[in-house]
Amino acid sequence: MINKLVEKIVKQGAPVVVGLDPMMKFVPKHLQNAAFEQYGETLEGAAEAIWQFNKAIIDNIYDIVPAVKPQIAMYEQFGLPGMAAFKKTVDYCHEKDMVVIGDVKRGDIGSTSEAYAVAHLGKVQVGSKLLAAFDEDFATVNPYLGSDGIKPFLKVCEEEKKGIFILVKTSNPSSGEFQDRLIDGKPLYELVGEKVNEWACGCMGEKYSYVGAVVGATYPEMGKRLRKVMPKSFILVPGYGAQGGKAEDLVHFFNEDGLGAIVNSSRGIIAAYTKEEYAKFGEKNFAEASRQAAIDMIADINGALKSR
Amino acid sequence: MINKLVEKIVKQGAPVVVGLDPMMKFVPKHLQNAAFEQYGETLEGAAEAIWQFNKAIIDNIYDIVPAVKPQIAMYEQFGLPGMAAFKKTVDYCHEKDMVVIGDVKRGDIGSTSEAYAVAHLGKVQVGSKLLAAFDEDFATVNPYLGSDGIKPFLKVCEEEKKGIFILVKTSNPSSGEFQDRLIDGKPLYELVGEKVNEWACGCMGEKYSYVGAVVGATYPEMGKRLRKVMPKSFILVPGYGAQGGKAEDLVHFFNEDGLGAIVNSSRGIIAAYTKEEYAKFGEKNFAEASRQAAIDMIADINGALKSR
Repeated sequence: MINKLVEKIVKQGAPVVVGLDPMMKFVPKHLQNAAFEQYGETLEGAAEAIWQFNKAIIDNIYDIVPAVKPQIAMYEQFGLPGMAAFKKTVDYCHEKDMVVIGDVKRGDIGSTSEAYAVAHLGKVQVGSKLLAAFDEDFATVNPYLGSDGIKPFLKVCEEEKKGIFILVKTSNPSSGEFQDRLIDGKPLYELVGEKVNEWACGCMGEKYSYVGAVVGATYPEMGKRLRKVMPKSFILVPGYGAQGGKAEDLVHFFNEDGLGAIVNSSRGIIAAYTKEEYAKFGEKNFAEASRQAAIDMIADINGALKSR
Repeated sequence: MINKLVEKIVKQGAPVVVGLDPMMKFVPKHLQNAAFEQYGETLEGAAEAIWQFNKAIIDNIYDIVPAVKPQIAMYEQFGLPGMAAFKKTVDYCHEKDMVVIGDVKRGDIGSTSEAYAVAHLGKVQVGSKLLAAFDEDFATVNPYLGSDGIKPFLKVCEEEKKGIFILVKTSNPSSGEFQDRLIDGKPLYELVGEKVNEWACGCMGEKYSYVGAVVGATYPEMGKRLRKVMPKSFILVPGYGAQGGKAEDLVHFFNEDGLGAIVNSSRGIIAAYTKEEYAKFGEKNFAEASRQAAIDMIADINGALKSR
């Protein structure tokens, strides 16, 4: 799947992933009203609204954006109907040939991490059958529990040719509280990066590894360093746009081959219509606004990559 | 909810939680067959089998055990039907007046952690309504992202009078890879413990805080130290039994008042019938075997607490 991701990025000229994090406040009123008319103000109604929202955005970006990253928390908060909307979104993106990165940030002790790996990337044994549960292409994983928590994911990645992105340095303001603390002179995130590199080298696709890393756009100097620590890992870079990451900072996350990073934007794309820049589209045409915002983001990043 | 947990522990004389982690290999054949006959070898069939398994165990322990800890990964691997079985289990435990600790190990940046907190402990806004999604009483939380990832949980805990257990030192063999690394002479888990104590002191119930910690039974010396670092936090202690933790090691996790810790056993209870000690019950009477194993575990821990 890392090979497919690289291929799609090259073909579309877009090292970009759109975060499908449909908070209700981003869902236009006409979609909310239609869903509530049908299902009432229920979890089912909310799930229908976010599904229709996602579907319209996917229809408007699938030919220019290689991948989506649905943030499962935004679905989980709507309970079982929300989880059904998550699954519907994953399946619809696959129909549109998009790569799906499940932003699930799971991680636990061995047998439990195995169940998470199976849930999101693998197949579960049921009697004589092997069945897929959520079936994303990649999942994000938390490293706090160490190798025990990662290895079951590596096993499933190898079997299924799927991938993971391990949290190394997250984009949020307080990420340094633990991640930046020095251990033998090196920050914790760098130690995690070194482990990621070990795992990555043991799980290679063609040019890049099935094991990638998450490093926030908001920390470009650390990104520069981590790029060298994990040369074979794709870096998933959140924090562009709304969180403050700028295109010129992002170039450090890429390798000399112009590859090695995929930049995420969530609300910058899906809620583009709420921003002054794209207000002319109007709320009804929110998905066209998303398309334009995606085009602009791709141009912004490619421009920065060319002029480095 | 911490007050209710303390009350139930005192009343039942049982500082014990049963981990409802229904791996298919633990589910007796007659339950699997009945479920597959009804639903086929499908995710629905698997979900029905684990639900019937859970229900029988709950019916046999609810009067002697104060709390359960369903591990959501074991449900997530069966997709949407699995998540429905998780929700059914949570609701049924509430009917039986048990405290439910959702072992979800979530944690993310601010707005996303907020969605997770809402999903598991709070209520989500849908139009003019506030609706609960999964509705556990406690959730386990991963600290790797720092305060940003924790604070949204604290807010929901205060609003809903619910609680969290933050991962400090996990029970698995490789937990030391990052958690034990020294930072200014102190291991990372101790720094996390100090933060937990800060958060805990700001979020108090009657005697104990709504903010607890996870510390593995497999590391009793660290438990002893962490008990002092976080005096107001309940410690959720996994690793008893199957993972190697012994009752005499567990006393260090308790305060002088005989409270402050709740010990988890999962397969030791739910799969008791597979162990030589309880084989006499037979597979058909798996739930009675679970009850006996719970009684024995409670006696074992109380015995160790009395003789300290």
